[in-house]
Amino acid sequence: MEYEPLCPKFESAFELLGKRWTGLIIRALLSGPKRFKDISGMIPNMSDRMLAERFKELESAGLLVRHVYPETPVRIEYELTQKGRDLEAALNEVQRWADTWMTKAAVQRD
Amino acid sequence: MEYEPLCPKFESAFELLGKRWTGLIIRALLSGPKRFKDISGMIPNMSDRMLAERFKELESAGLLVRHVYPETPVRIEYELTQKGRDLEAALNEVQRWADTWMTKAAVQRD
Repeated sequence: MEYEPLCPKFESAFELLGKRWTGLIIRALLSGPKRFKDISGMIPNMSDRMLAERFKELESAGLLVRHVYPETPVRIEYELTQKGRDLEAALNEVQRWADTWMTKAAVQRD
Repeated sequence: MEYEPLCPKFESAFELLGKRWTGLIIRALLSGPKRFKDISGMIPNMSDRMLAERFKELESAGLLVRHVYPETPVRIEYELTQKGRDLEAALNEVQRWADTWMTKAAVQRD
């Protein structure tokens, strides 16, 4: 059989990416480093608490780094690592699929 | 700003695909229609109850259809729709990314 019985890497990737807002956060960061407020402004339905949690998860998974610039006031930016940026093709494919197949009704049902 | 503030289609797609086992089930079906036991044999860590639940979700989302052949004993097969098969490129991209970046340690930590 060609199919590998169990692929924990694939499954882990989808568990990470499948968390609410994670895909959108990564996409927002693909255009360059951003501050907390930049991202929260782009995803108005997401709470700040949720964004802080997602940032921690993504940092822990090695997808983003946090830069602290010791200015006054302090400036903090979030930037994708190479591992994070390398998701662009996958996210684009999911977006293409969603644009083709996810009808308004399907989105509302969820 | 180029970035669309909120893309519910993209988010819905990831919420659907991000559920545990869903990606693996779709990948298993990409090679053609399968019976319940074919899939459960391919993903040994997943319970039959979970597989039944996922099949229902995927059917309800229009990604697969259930064929009942009135033989003795009755034969039931699950087949991806065009909408389901069209996920192949996205799943392959996630697999490529996972193969490149998900280390054994990262998988175990999750």
